[in-house]
Amino acid sequence: MPVKTIEWANHSARIIDQTRLPTEIVYLNIETVEQMGEAIKMLRIRGAPAIGIAAAFGAYLSIRNFPSAQPKARFFDALNAAIEYLKSTRPTAVNLFWALDRMQTSAQSVQNEEIETIKRHLLEQALAILEEDRAICRQLAFAGADLIKDGSTILTHCNAGGLATSEWGTAVGVIYAAVEQGKNIRVFADETRPLLQGARLTTWELMESGIDVTLICDNMAAFVMQQQRIDCIIVGADRIARNGDTANKIGTYNLAVLAEKHKLPFYIAAPVSTFDLTLTSGEKIPIEERDPREITEGFGTRTAPENVKVYNPAFDVTPNSLIHAFITEKGVIKPPFESNFQKFFK
Amino acid sequence: MPVKTIEWANHSARIIDQTRLPTEIVYLNIETVEQMGEAIKMLRIRGAPAIGIAAAFGAYLSIRNFPSAQPKARFFDALNAAIEYLKSTRPTAVNLFWALDRMQTSAQSVQNEEIETIKRHLLEQALAILEEDRAICRQLAFAGADLIKDGSTILTHCNAGGLATSEWGTAVGVIYAAVEQGKNIRVFADETRPLLQGARLTTWELMESGIDVTLICDNMAAFVMQQQRIDCIIVGADRIARNGDTANKIGTYNLAVLAEKHKLPFYIAAPVSTFDLTLTSGEKIPIEERDPREITEGFGTRTAPENVKVYNPAFDVTPNSLIHAFITEKGVIKPPFESNFQKFFK
Repeated sequence: MPVKTIEWANHSARIIDQTRLPTEIVYLNIETVEQMGEAIKMLRIRGAPAIGIAAAFGAYLSIRNFPSAQPKARFFDALNAAIEYLKSTRPTAVNLFWALDRMQTSAQSVQNEEIETIKRHLLEQALAILEEDRAICRQLAFAGADLIKDGSTILTHCNAGGLATSEWGTAVGVIYAAVEQGKNIRVFADETRPLLQGARLTTWELMESGIDVTLICDNMAAFVMQQQRIDCIIVGADRIARNGDTANKIGTYNLAVLAEKHKLPFYIAAPVSTFDLTLTSGEKIPIEERDPREITEGFGTRTAPENVKVYNPAFDVTPNSLIHAFITEKGVIKPPFESNFQKFFK
Repeated sequence: MPVKTIEWANHSARIIDQTRLPTEIVYLNIETVEQMGEAIKMLRIRGAPAIGIAAAFGAYLSIRNFPSAQPKARFFDALNAAIEYLKSTRPTAVNLFWALDRMQTSAQSVQNEEIETIKRHLLEQALAILEEDRAICRQLAFAGADLIKDGSTILTHCNAGGLATSEWGTAVGVIYAAVEQGKNIRVFADETRPLLQGARLTTWELMESGIDVTLICDNMAAFVMQQQRIDCIIVGADRIARNGDTANKIGTYNLAVLAEKHKLPFYIAAPVSTFDLTLTSGEKIPIEERDPREITEGFGTRTAPENVKVYNPAFDVTPNSLIHAFITEKGVIKPPFESNFQKFFK
């Protein structure tokens, strides 16, 4: 069943260390903002919705031991510095910024209260973000499940599962919901180079839920589609621009092109917090480039020459024209996206 | 410069153990047919033309110590059994079968001679296959280089380089030839999961030749094309059917779809020995499936759950409609392929 990716327990944020999966299930109790920043940067917790929640708890942890006798301006300085630090951990997923802006606004709304009250308010806000994500993912999942026919085989990429959110996931949440509706569903999971979130995380959580999953390398998806073994593609998102252009894990654009070629529906599953309506198009989305060693010596063995040039973008941008629908907690949004986003999100 | 992938030296076939590259350069002296079969199966030597050459030497090694006083029928039994064994090592690349059939025919053509004479004849035949491959690859490379504009950036997949042939390579041979023509060429190399021939072999041999190469994961090729950083795609082939459908390393079909979407020329570089005109279309090409552990625990670390279902095809088939031209030692063949193959190969 869906996973407890992040919880608030015993005065700390308890997360699964996703870098250790699937061979070990290790929980970490995160007690400081620095620990949370490190966990986000190192992908111990990842997935756009989950890092939003993690950052919210990180913001709270940054001030929870702030001495209440100190000047309030210093309290806000500390909070704002922590928020800036957390914003610097990863650039692409907008949920991180969305959650931290929400924490900042929330603190400002009670700025005339005492420090201890503001602290309590911030913890409540972080818990609200967590609880809302749980509810949102379920709504999103069941909205998407109605698109899925009984007997379908779904291809997914990276991990947009329970491990990418508080619990149910987005793209994989749709699969859980379809299974709950009694549908017979099979899944192909792209391993998702370089960090293998598909191989390590998606297969693990689907197998834990007893769902039929087959692991393939990213470069096999085209061949599997050519063999007519796939009925639709569902992936998550890290940031969606106003026109529907969508940043998601590197390899997503590739799948969207393959889906078009094979006339397969291509769906993006993401909560409203992943939509960044301030950006007119995908060209404006900053794309994180990560350490070349993720490719040249991933998982401990050097597999490329020393000093080889490497390009390692963590995300790509899929143009709106290749996307059949967005699955959100407010329902399924079909083209034309820009005008329909206005209607759904007003 | 191009590589001595396989040579005949000191009464044995000397090969580079490609499973050890790029961190170690280890040569193996192959002295028995069993050693050669193991080397082909384990991909110590790989690449369609190279395994043809390797198999030819393997066939010779199987009988070179056959006692000349024994009945000749036993000699042929031993040779034919070895040829059958070598044919069982890998199913997809036709060059293996082509080279072994040539060895068998060659032995039969001198069947009335003494055993020692037939042995000598077989060694000469294997050496001829090696020498011809050297010449063929150069001819092919310069034929292809004329398609490449100065200043081009070429994407390639897997390793169709010197390491896949006797020396110069096919797809990468075209790059060497373009550079020899004085053109400024840059290369993007797909890492090529699961066995990373692109990361381990292609980058290594291009860097050894001082050619500008950038390593990417397979799932990044689409994004790099979208950014207009690629001018054409050149790959090798393992078997080409009469209509031009082409089996090559898994992920090739994916690239062909991406090339079509981005309006980029997609070229197959392969010697005539890779064409199997007995097959009417690509559907008839047997596709090797390899050990799931190549995906779940490649390079020593387990990166997927125990008992996960895996699909691991080593090749895919690119339909002729996505291929702009075949680059062969007899020249560049453009569509319509079926009739043009007849003209070129008659």
